[in-house]
Amino acid sequence: MTPSAAPVTGEPEPSLTSAAIEHKLAEDHHHGNGFSNGNSSALPLEYHELDASKLTYSLTDRSRDVPPLGVSDINGETICTDHMITAAWSAKGGWEAPELKPYGPLALMPTASVLHYATECFEGLKAYRGFDGKLRLFRPDCNCARMLMSSVRISLPSFPPEELEKLILALMAIDGAKWLPRDRPGSFIYLRPTMIGTQSALGVQAPSKALLYIIASYMPSMDAPNGGLRLHTSPDDMVRAWVGGFGYAKVGANYGPSLLATQEARSRGFGQILWLYGEKGLCTEAGASNFFVVWKTPEGKMQMVTAPLDDRLILDGVTRRSVLSLAREHLGDEVEIVERKYTIDEVVQADADGRLLESFAAGTAYFVCPISLIHHRGRDVRISMGKAGEGGPITLKLKGLLKDIMYGNMDHAWGVVVQ
Amino acid sequence: MTPSAAPVTGEPEPSLTSAAIEHKLAEDHHHGNGFSNGNSSALPLEYHELDASKLTYSLTDRSRDVPPLGVSDINGETICTDHMITAAWSAKGGWEAPELKPYGPLALMPTASVLHYATECFEGLKAYRGFDGKLRLFRPDCNCARMLMSSVRISLPSFPPEELEKLILALMAIDGAKWLPRDRPGSFIYLRPTMIGTQSALGVQAPSKALLYIIASYMPSMDAPNGGLRLHTSPDDMVRAWVGGFGYAKVGANYGPSLLATQEARSRGFGQILWLYGEKGLCTEAGASNFFVVWKTPEGKMQMVTAPLDDRLILDGVTRRSVLSLAREHLGDEVEIVERKYTIDEVVQADADGRLLESFAAGTAYFVCPISLIHHRGRDVRISMGKAGEGGPITLKLKGLLKDIMYGNMDHAWGVVVQ
Repeated sequence: MTPSAAPVTGEPEPSLTSAAIEHKLAEDHHHGNGFSNGNSSALPLEYHELDASKLTYSLTDRSRDVPPLGVSDINGETICTDHMITAAWSAKGGWEAPELKPYGPLALMPTASVLHYATECFEGLKAYRGFDGKLRLFRPDCNCARMLMSSVRISLPSFPPEELEKLILALMAIDGAKWLPRDRPGSFIYLRPTMIGTQSALGVQAPSKALLYIIASYMPSMDAPNGGLRLHTSPDDMVRAWVGGFGYAKVGANYGPSLLATQEARSRGFGQILWLYGEKGLCTEAGASNFFVVWKTPEGKMQMVTAPLDDRLILDGVTRRSVLSLAREHLGDEVEIVERKYTIDEVVQADADGRLLESFAAGTAYFVCPISLIHHRGRDVRISMGKAGEGGPITLKLKGLLKDIMYGNMDHAWGVVVQ
Repeated sequence: MTPSAAPVTGEPEPSLTSAAIEHKLAEDHHHGNGFSNGNSSALPLEYHELDASKLTYSLTDRSRDVPPLGVSDINGETICTDHMITAAWSAKGGWEAPELKPYGPLALMPTASVLHYATECFEGLKAYRGFDGKLRLFRPDCNCARMLMSSVRISLPSFPPEELEKLILALMAIDGAKWLPRDRPGSFIYLRPTMIGTQSALGVQAPSKALLYIIASYMPSMDAPNGGLRLHTSPDDMVRAWVGGFGYAKVGANYGPSLLATQEARSRGFGQILWLYGEKGLCTEAGASNFFVVWKTPEGKMQMVTAPLDDRLILDGVTRRSVLSLAREHLGDEVEIVERKYTIDEVVQADADGRLLESFAAGTAYFVCPISLIHHRGRDVRISMGKAGEGGPITLKLKGLLKDIMYGNMDHAWGVVVQ
């Protein structure tokens, strides 16, 4: 049979997705904590909001040694600090009092939601030991707001993001002094707030129990790979994220499926995949980092370009946002800063014309990492690494500005001092 | 700047994805077990393949009670049988000897790969207590082969699928007699082989450690919801799977992101989402089941139609495959059996023309479940539930044939008896 020529579908109606997100936020922002919206009759009476002021402390009696500078794992296992913070949630009672306790294994039933249905999301941010001796976080409010968005998208509970931020600061207040010692200025620790669905049930459904936890770990510096970061464009038969998907959320489901192509690219000598989207090959992300290009337009104008957020394909990176903001403030006179869709063919063409100047990846893990090569469909696009081989002048300028804020050389509202 | 008109990309080259899958399979099918491909020099000398004959047994001394018929959970937690089977894998040594042991919690470090990057896959199959008193699995070889495919897609280790099948049979040989008692013919247990990435490392990478486990659980019968299954088409801004994605694999990343829309649909009185794909609204899956429609073509021919597998958008369901095969064998004279792309508009048009006859979802969990209604963009498409209100004649015929095989009324190669 032939498809009917004329569409016979009816009127549009409120989207399930946006309705679901609104309902979820309305449900969780209820009685208590001034969030009441008059909607509380359907909710359990004893629902408790996440409350950092209720944090309990059980300090470890088996304190471990701080690893030598530059060591971040033991036999491939990430080294974490002495403590972690956990907070359990249930649909029935809401959030239990968060606990700071010794770092150690979690017990999960084999039926736990997270192990089957990827009901999981996370954040990544760093704590920095400043050259002034102070310990700082960088824009933790951005990470906490994004964690809430990711959590709701993956059917995990909502929470007041400022309470999460307080918990992160509480963990650093206990472990920061020892694990980021004052005699190691310019070093950092990587913080990983995580939420997982813990209901022990195999039915495919939003979990009625969840666990939020925060851990602090070591991670190697990845912003200056020898010779620059080398990218391989994504294969035609593999897409990282898609319009109508969840590429904008920091959920596990964005990561596992990308590992196969990444591993293959690494075995061919590349550091990350440059993820292209759609038939035109739109540039989206470099690995799990945002991707920036600096070029001259055909008209001769200096321009820095990165993909826009409007299709919700890519992560609203904190580093991305900060780079754009600093570039507009400090480089706006010389360089046009543009968020728009652009294709790999435009990058290749700019290279062929000699207009391609710099490229870098921006994210918490890779910080601001210069890109030296993009391999696309059998062709190598080589990009200048600047005079000292550490990145082009715009890349280095932005990296320097960010470092100054993170490590306390410059006083800035984005640097939040841990007391 | 304007995008260049002529594509400047180079020659095609071997796909990262297919190359990665080939490498992975070649790597794991090496020395031992007759899989040698002369490629073993790069592999650890002491790599062991998954071997069911090495299974060790530690039986529980805290045997639990079998729940009353029809009870599958306690306070929302799935009831499992006394035992589970686990097998640990590492990139270094391969598979350790599998263990049958008491069902209980798993200990995972907070940094475990599965909790952050959704490195997880699973299978679902049932064990059936036949009317002849025998215990059967239904085509377990299909599930084990698909588990291997899913595992490789999500960067977890490969294994000989026949070894997994032996382990499933071994678990049922121990727990089947008690948990599917002979005085409950026509009942089933739901088996869930699962694999998770357990490497305790936050670096985004294929895990170097994994755990395979098999659990056996109770699950409610879902194939005869009161009044038939009611579907709501997916919202415009939410896509389950996409070309170049992983919709064909049974990986956690396909499930978590779909829960939000499903929960909202349930709150509006629908059982599942009918997932549409692309601008034309291609019908793909009903919830996590395959979707079938029986209609008359405009030319008056009886036809049963379901989406094809060629874009790898949908799961290659064992029930789907069996339904197609049985329909061709038993109904081929009256009904044309077609796997092709078709749109929601075609379904709506068939309804408007009075040509829409039956619809059902097919999968292990929902078995063969009649669909009574599809809600699409403000319009209700109502579908006949047959004379007795339990599904149309073709739906019931196929369901009956499958039941006869599963519960031993008909001798068939698809029914594998547990000894």
